[in-house]
Order: sequence, then C-alpha cells, then structure tokens
Amino acid sequence: MSAMFGRVAVLGLGLIGGSFAAAVRRARLAERVVGYAPPPDGAVAVELGLIDETCADVAAALRGAELVMLAAPVTALPALFDEVAGCLPEAAIVTDCASTKRSVLAAARASLGNRAGRFVAGHPIAGSEHSGPRAARATLFDGAQVMVCPAAETGRQACERVQALWRALGAHVVLVDADSHDRLYGELSHWPHAVAFALSAAVGTGAHAEDALRFAGGGLRDTTRIGASSPTLWADILLDNRDACLASAARFRACNDAIVAALETGDREALVALFSTASRWRNRLG
Amino acid sequence: MSAMFGRVAVLGLGLIGGSFAAAVRRARLAERVVGYAPPPDGAVAVELGLIDETCADVAAALRGAELVMLAAPVTALPALFDEVAGCLPEAAIVTDCASTKRSVLAAARASLGNRAGRFVAGHPIAGSEHSGPRAARATLFDGAQVMVCPAAETGRQACERVQALWRALGAHVVLVDADSHDRLYGELSHWPHAVAFALSAAVGTGAHAEDALRFAGGGLRDTTRIGASSPTLWADILLDNRDACLASAARFRACNDAIVAALETGDREALVALFSTASRWRNRLG
Repeated sequence: MSAMFGRVAVLGLGLIGGSFAAAVRRARLAERVVGYAPPPDGAVAVELGLIDETCADVAAALRGAELVMLAAPVTALPALFDEVAGCLPEAAIVTDCASTKRSVLAAARASLGNRAGRFVAGHPIAGSEHSGPRAARATLFDGAQVMVCPAAETGRQACERVQALWRALGAHVVLVDADSHDRLYGELSHWPHAVAFALSAAVGTGAHAEDALRFAGGGLRDTTRIGASSPTLWADILLDNRDACLASAARFRACNDAIVAALETGDREALVALFSTASRWRNRLG
Repeated sequence: MSAMFGRVAVLGLGLIGGSFAAAVRRARLAERVVGYAPPPDGAVAVELGLIDETCADVAAALRGAELVMLAAPVTALPALFDEVAGCLPEAAIVTDCASTKRSVLAAARASLGNRAGRFVAGHPIAGSEHSGPRAARATLFDGAQVMVCPAAETGRQACERVQALWRALGAHVVLVDADSHDRLYGELSHWPHAVAFALSAAVGTGAHAEDALRFAGGGLRDTTRIGASSPTLWADILLDNRDACLASAARFRACNDAIVAALETGDREALVALFSTASRWRNRLG
C-alpha cells in the first residue's frame, strides 16, 4: 500500500510543526518528511527523529513536495507565502496550523494569486505553554479537534486530502468559515491567554511574587498556566485577531467589574448570582 | 503505642473536613474519629468510611473529645464557635481549616473568651473545585502545605500539638501571622478564584457558550477550572477577605487594562513587555 502523500515539507519545526512532522512519520502517511526551520531547529528535529531530513532553505524543502505544511508564527506567514509562491511544485497542496485564519487566507490570496485554491487553512486545537522542537510529540493530535476553514476559492480535492490527513492522524475535523473561527477562538483561546498573562503579571510584579513560588496552590497554577506561553507568539495572535479579542475583553471586563463592585458594596447576592452563572457553565464544560 | 489523640471530633464533613477525618483515621492518629454535619453528610461520611461514627449534634460530637476540627464554611464559624463554647471539654484543643484567618481568630475570641488560647487557626493549602464528603480523600494533605497562624493568646502546647498532627498527616507546616496569611491568600487564591469566575461567566453568557463545550482546548479549561467551585463558599471567602482581594483586584485590573489599551492602539512592544513579565514569573512557578 502506498503512503497517502509522497514528500511532505514542514516549514517551521516548533511544538506544532515538529509534532505534525513526527505524527505523519509515525502514521507512515508520507514517503518522506522533510523540514526547514531557522537554525538550530532543523538539526534538532532530525536528532529527535521528528523529520527524515532537514533542508537548507524553503526552496530545497519544497522540491518535489506534494504537501507543504506552514507551521510558522502568524506574523511570519505573509513572507513565507511569498517565498513558497516562488517555488511551489505544480499540484502541491499547502496548509497551515496558525491560530487565526482570516489574515492567513488573505496572505495566501496575496501571494498565491490564482493558485490560492491549493491552500487549505487549518488550525489544530492542541498545544501547550511550551514551545520549540523539544516540546514536540507525535501524539499531540490524537483525539484533538482540527478546524479546517475552506474559503470560496479553496479546491475541493485539496480540502478533502487535508481533512483525510488529519483524520489519519487521529484528529476530528470540524469545518468552519474563517470569520466564525476567529471569533470563536478569540473567545475560547486568545483572550483567555490575555487573562492568564494579566493575572501572572499582576502576581509576578506584586508584593507576593516570591512567596507565591513557595505557597501557591493548584488554583493559581491552573489559572495562570498558559501565562507561561511565548510572549511574542501570543502578542501577535491577539493583535492579528484584535476585533474578536477586544469584544471578548469587554465582556470579561464587565464580569470582572461586577465582582469588584459587589465586593466593594458587600453585595453577597450579586456575587453569588454571578459565581453561580459561572460555576454552572464551567461544570458543564467538564 | 498509643494514638496521638484520644477522640477527635470533626464538625463539617465536606471535602476538607471529610478528608481530614479520613486522613486521621488512615494514619491512626486518634482512638476514635467522630463527626457532625447537617444531614445527609454525616451518614454519607460513615458510609464512605471517613469517620467512625456520626453524632446527632455538636454537643454529642464534642463529648470526651481531645481535638475539635472546625471544617465549616467561614460564615458558619461564628455560630459554630458559640455552640462549641457551650460544650467544649476541659483541655480540648480546637482548630480549623478555613481559607481566611483574621475573622476566624476574632470569632474564636468572641466565643471562647479566656479559653481562646486553646484555639489554633490553620489553613491547609489543598482542595479542589469539588465539594461534599464524596469528594473527600484520605491523601488530600500528603505533601500539602498547612498554614498555622498562632495569635498572641494561642497556647504553645496546643499550637505544637496541631502542628505535630499535620506533620503526621504528611503535610508541611508553615507558621505565619493571620494578617500576612490573609493578604497572601487574597492574592494567591481568593482573587484568582474571582478571575476564573469572571472568565467563566463571560464565556458562559456569551455567544459561544454552547460552542465552547465542544470546541474549547486545554487553555480555557485550565484557566477556568476553579470557576466551577462553590459559588456561596467563595462569595463568603472573598467578602471575608475583602480588603486584600480588592487590592489584588486593582493590580490585576491595571494589567488587564494595559493589555486592552495595547491591543486597541496596536502597541506590540507594550504587549510583548507585559507578556514577558508574566511569562518569566509563571515559568519560575513551574
């Protein structure tokens, strides 16, 4: 039986790109998995067995590739699309795994022009507060959901092959348009990262910053966990999805301010009502 | 070898009281562990093997007790101290495990008068978003830190016996005055609960409340986990420690507002600086 793809090129070999490459290798979905990333990630990825081969540049990685996975931070994608456009093999499919989708589709259109139909926007809901190839795991997408965001121009066959690939990696594919995707994850992921950063910054610059390292319980640890994430990566994601994040921020702040007001006035009934709404929903989340 | 205590009475048999009773039984630190709680918790605690015997009321539980653990919510403690004062055996030690300590010491003084030296204020840093005797575990305090807050009047021997008890349960005891304790845990636990409630309420009343149940990743789950906690318990803790919580709230809100302002103006440098401060501290927390 032949593999699903011939050569797969993964551009960017951090937590997500490295995990994707390793997962494709493990599932034997490609004849060869090559990668390119700024040093030293390429060499590290070979050493860790995430890829078969590291390439000297994007053009070398793309030579003969059937599938190109763009696993770079969202701000790096416009330049990367330009570079990919200059050396994309005929009929190769391009996909990505960035956290925002509207801007990525716009970048694909700008760089690929009438070949934009070969790009399939994707976003696996997986990751952690760690980054880099050493954080990569071949099992990262097992049971994960992957949002695939076809646009009007997206080729049907390309879209189906990308979906089949994710399913073969053990993921569940959900089709959603890019606008809905960005609003949804602004609320469910991007703005919550800002909250965790804000709480970490408040405690970490407060009078108890050092004591916290000794005396914090599991509650603070969990509430701030994603506050350990990459500052530049998340600054760029929030800026890229600014309108959705600001809408989520406004509703969060209204809840926060309602708690402060109830505390100030000693309004137990208002506090219990707001906490009950919160707790009911959070218990449903499980 | 005789046990550390004769009869231990645990008043309140929820997550913390039930776990304490079960831990004392498991470690054979008492000849008998009895409990009292409003129905049905007492019967449930016997059924689960958390206590040897459930008593009909506080007076029955205290008869012959050498140690009394008050494991009731902070707002229930003043009335419970009054009741305990009326039937406290000579020489019995009283301790508690509430999340705030200044108001508990004040309640002890008000009810116990010149016997207040027999009360030792304590706060085990352990728990979860679950509650009730069915959430109790004999291992809850293994390796946990327990804050013990002696006041000027606290008897030295009583304080040492309570510390020895917690150590025998596998916990690490930290001595701290009640004022410092309340400021510290306002920052490290009480206000973070408010943040998790606020984020849960914002998402749970937003346009994506239902989608979130299907599409949320681990980040939202962790950031909101303690938003599933008991609404009344936490409303009362926050109100009881209002000044400390409002101070923590003000600094959290300043960080939150700085993020919103940087997002609004597209100030990437400011966002990266704030997220870096947050991330550095959070990575130290481990």
